[in-house]
Amino acid sequence: MASRMVDGKVLVDDPARGSQLYSRGYFGNPLSGGGVELDLVEATYLMEMGKLDVLKGGRRLRMEDLLRAGHTLNPNFEIRYLVYRDLRQRGYVVKPGIPPLDFRVFPRGTGPDKGPTKYWVLAISERSVFDIEELESYIADVANVRKQLIVAVVDEESDITFYRVSKASPRGDLKEDGGDSPTEALFMKDRAIILDPEKASGLYGLGFYGRMLGDKLQLSLLETVYLAKRGLLVVRRAQTGRRIGLATLLKDAKAVQPDLEMRLKVYEDLKGRGVIVKTGFKYGSHFRGYEGDPEEHHAKYLIHALPEGFRGMWPEISRAVRLAHGVRKEILLGRLGPRVEYIRLQRIRP
Amino acid sequence: MASRMVDGKVLVDDPARGSQLYSRGYFGNPLSGGGVELDLVEATYLMEMGKLDVLKGGRRLRMEDLLRAGHTLNPNFEIRYLVYRDLRQRGYVVKPGIPPLDFRVFPRGTGPDKGPTKYWVLAISERSVFDIEELESYIADVANVRKQLIVAVVDEESDITFYRVSKASPRGDLKEDGGDSPTEALFMKDRAIILDPEKASGLYGLGFYGRMLGDKLQLSLLETVYLAKRGLLVVRRAQTGRRIGLATLLKDAKAVQPDLEMRLKVYEDLKGRGVIVKTGFKYGSHFRGYEGDPEEHHAKYLIHALPEGFRGMWPEISRAVRLAHGVRKEILLGRLGPRVEYIRLQRIRP
Repeated sequence: MASRMVDGKVLVDDPARGSQLYSRGYFGNPLSGGGVELDLVEATYLMEMGKLDVLKGGRRLRMEDLLRAGHTLNPNFEIRYLVYRDLRQRGYVVKPGIPPLDFRVFPRGTGPDKGPTKYWVLAISERSVFDIEELESYIADVANVRKQLIVAVVDEESDITFYRVSKASPRGDLKEDGGDSPTEALFMKDRAIILDPEKASGLYGLGFYGRMLGDKLQLSLLETVYLAKRGLLVVRRAQTGRRIGLATLLKDAKAVQPDLEMRLKVYEDLKGRGVIVKTGFKYGSHFRGYEGDPEEHHAKYLIHALPEGFRGMWPEISRAVRLAHGVRKEILLGRLGPRVEYIRLQRIRP
Repeated sequence: MASRMVDGKVLVDDPARGSQLYSRGYFGNPLSGGGVELDLVEATYLMEMGKLDVLKGGRRLRMEDLLRAGHTLNPNFEIRYLVYRDLRQRGYVVKPGIPPLDFRVFPRGTGPDKGPTKYWVLAISERSVFDIEELESYIADVANVRKQLIVAVVDEESDITFYRVSKASPRGDLKEDGGDSPTEALFMKDRAIILDPEKASGLYGLGFYGRMLGDKLQLSLLETVYLAKRGLLVVRRAQTGRRIGLATLLKDAKAVQPDLEMRLKVYEDLKGRGVIVKTGFKYGSHFRGYEGDPEEHHAKYLIHALPEGFRGMWPEISRAVRLAHGVRKEILLGRLGPRVEYIRLQRIRP
């Protein structure tokens, strides 16, 4: 006795067949009469594996019919199917999720009668919008029920990249002592230089600011603004030697770096957490973050600042994670808001 | 007898001192009277190294004065100075370049009396605009005199990344035979699937199109459009089973992927060169390119398609090169125009 398609579900009425499907892989939801009700994704998978025949109005359906029915029900069906298929073939028991999440996945080797699910999976196309607010709401929902959020991104050629996404709270060991009398700095377009050797090494020692060039210290634009705001710098214009006030400095700096204020907020937040922050330019991100002395430690984090309500595309995010992964660093997204929130993205192989 | 600053140059009149500076590191341009004329970058470097005193109007100048004078002459002075200093400290003989290029550099261990320069260097800030047309004109100018173009990008904390930039002409071994009767494909939003097992493996065998999923073939959006244009596909809409004409397919595809036409032009050009092209999503670029069978070779290239007259920022470019470098691939920029031109960017350690 074959199964039949009803209202976008596939019913396996035969109790023997139903209990076989459920016991051999936890496919479908058991029905009171002994059969199971399969989600279309499950039915498509079982048909592809040659384990299921489906009838509709007496006609035997082909795989094409299930794909079409699925696609009509949900334009994202193909993406969901690819992720479901991949996880099943890796040996996981996968059950439909609570929308908007696509799947609930049990730890490998377990199933519904052996304990709870571990991963909740969102299946998306690489062409999906990356919406930071939406993602944060998923993180919160999934964390509330003590699961891990996994985002499965399906690329153009149906390869899948899995990301574990969670909240983060970076910390470092830096405690700044002193920083008493302000230091004179010469401002040159997009950086500043401290020429007094003693002041230079003092400021470097205070919080690993800038970079020593011989016995002089070169400060980045951001460091210059930050230290001026803290009253630790007297900034003079290179051409005239005239002192630049904070408001003018900020205006000049923003002309060179339009997103300076966004970066500054994340920079300040990280400093408040004791993290030592340097530019992430070479890694294609805004900052790298050290837990301790950058001359003795490798950077642990790469941090990218994002504005509140950021919306972008997944390929940008994928690129950032890939880079961080390649240099064994964690990528954090620092999202602006009433306070800066950090999101960790880890590429995993399930 | 000290040197003196005149019109943004520093004159070392004393013949003994001048010939010493020139013979010990080829600093400055020899003057007919026996002295040398130093560029401000050279003079600043010599002063920082404690090898030069400069007078102006009888007053002995400090390093700050030279930095100021340089900055007034050229807002990019600091960037130029950092690159000059770095190359000198690595042991290269560096001479001022012919504008807009900043420096001419001799092979290590040689100088003006031992043969020609090898590298022509452009010194820029990471905040500079990346202008593809400008860069291509530099490549052409430098190639004309048989030199190598090096772009030195100075980041926020004065670290320098060096890129060798040149034209490229990617090639591959693929020759497609056959591809006779069109194959039926089911179109699902951003990809298509070929369900007939024989047709599926035939199309994969023809040019490594798509990805086998069991005995079915999954085609990317771009592959679907490309093969339909070549008359090798009959595309049907998943929901209705109705045939989609080429114009409608293109319209639908562009709705999903707005830059589809740009990518398609580079894809077609690469196909014409025998390169096997797959998506570069996981590497954050548009394509990866193989010289031969992707199951037996690693991808040699990562290729990024750019529109004619593209202007972007250096951090984006830096990110792409870093990624390609990390996975030991060459990054090529494929710039649209009357024909597609390829630019190779290699990160080097001088």
